[in-house]
Amino acid sequence: MRNIKMTIEYDGKRYQGWQRLGDSDKTIQGKIENIIHQMTGEKIEIIGSGRTDAGTHAKGQVANFKTESTMSLDEMLDFFHQYLPQDIVVKQLDDMPERFHARYNAKGKQYSYNVWNHRIPSAFYKNYSMYVPEYLNIEKMEEACEKLKGTHDFRGFSALKKTKKSTTRTISDIAIQRHGDILQFTFVGDGFLHKMVRIMMGTLLDIGVGRLSVEDIDGIFETGIRSQAGDTVPSQGLFLDEVFYK
Amino acid sequence: MRNIKMTIEYDGKRYQGWQRLGDSDKTIQGKIENIIHQMTGEKIEIIGSGRTDAGTHAKGQVANFKTESTMSLDEMLDFFHQYLPQDIVVKQLDDMPERFHARYNAKGKQYSYNVWNHRIPSAFYKNYSMYVPEYLNIEKMEEACEKLKGTHDFRGFSALKKTKKSTTRTISDIAIQRHGDILQFTFVGDGFLHKMVRIMMGTLLDIGVGRLSVEDIDGIFETGIRSQAGDTVPSQGLFLDEVFYK
Repeated sequence: MRNIKMTIEYDGKRYQGWQRLGDSDKTIQGKIENIIHQMTGEKIEIIGSGRTDAGTHAKGQVANFKTESTMSLDEMLDFFHQYLPQDIVVKQLDDMPERFHARYNAKGKQYSYNVWNHRIPSAFYKNYSMYVPEYLNIEKMEEACEKLKGTHDFRGFSALKKTKKSTTRTISDIAIQRHGDILQFTFVGDGFLHKMVRIMMGTLLDIGVGRLSVEDIDGIFETGIRSQAGDTVPSQGLFLDEVFYK
Repeated sequence: MRNIKMTIEYDGKRYQGWQRLGDSDKTIQGKIENIIHQMTGEKIEIIGSGRTDAGTHAKGQVANFKTESTMSLDEMLDFFHQYLPQDIVVKQLDDMPERFHARYNAKGKQYSYNVWNHRIPSAFYKNYSMYVPEYLNIEKMEEACEKLKGTHDFRGFSALKKTKKSTTRTISDIAIQRHGDILQFTFVGDGFLHKMVRIMMGTLLDIGVGRLSVEDIDGIFETGIRSQAGDTVPSQGLFLDEVFYK
């Protein structure tokens, strides 16, 4: 039995997210599984490194699937390019040891979030960024990033209902870079709770415009109360950049 | 009577091009005229620097319109941002002398064309580039650009039927730049015939893959026969970057 690792790029705009929902044709996972079924004749479930929400993009989502197919990786790559919709691209395929598991073996992830920070909006980046015309205090946001970094209970920065699972995560890096009118926020960590990046982003933007203070981060960590953090920013600015393995 | 110059950015994907066609709601000109009508109560025709084809984008299309409105330019800018669809953005407004005419006064234009030149296509640039996985000989294409530059009869590089108007144009610069997997071709000239940039691009790509030779350019200039040049490349890779005025 072969175990194949896929690295996948997608424009999430038209989709209800990564995870297949029944027979829905509107998920990334569903689209890819349909093509693998056409390609191999096998009914295969692919395992993603994790879900992405409706509208979220990926530059390097990772998944794996097991197959008896004898097709070469190049032939499979060509098949994917021919039959997948243009907004889902399989960038790379690798044969892996049978024990490789895209979710269990993931050691960390990098996400980025684009903010279009100019009075004049963009006709081209509207689907790939959040429009924020207000002045943003970068220094204050960078101080807040320092507070978010490290190992904390991120319950207050997540959309989770009550859970018995640990909500402690470690963020190793957050960086803010300006590329022209785009402010790009990059988050690297060992794992992220549901909507955690988008809620941290909403909180950083509140600090950038002065609606929250840097010190409010401490309070959110202490109480774990979601409503003290900023809004969940729109998914169209969010990219899953990369999934890290050993 | 005020005469207002508009600088406009648009994602051409959803539109049938710049020029209003009857009552069609599917043109850039039509969309903007409808908003100006709402804004001023006046039935106004705007004058573009020239047409762009269905699917072609613009970073700096220029148009002008005359109005009795006493609104400030900032108020107008806000009105446009609020009511235009997100894929059409008025970037700048300027009050001009009454004789300013966006078409007659244009001294030249810059267009660019994006080619996605990598085996693996892009999920994000598909609407903003042409996918060309083949190896392209940049040196040969640059030699061809040198031949295209200057003052020539570009009849063979246009989609014009018989015309009595001059088909002589001057191209002052063509440049090829690589940005990652994107090859960007930039064309600067005093004017461009219908589909001229897209036919020059198709010809350059044919030279890049070896289907045509650099010397074939001379033949196309001599005979003026359209069928000797390359195909018209798709409009989604084309951008009107800038219109030049004195």
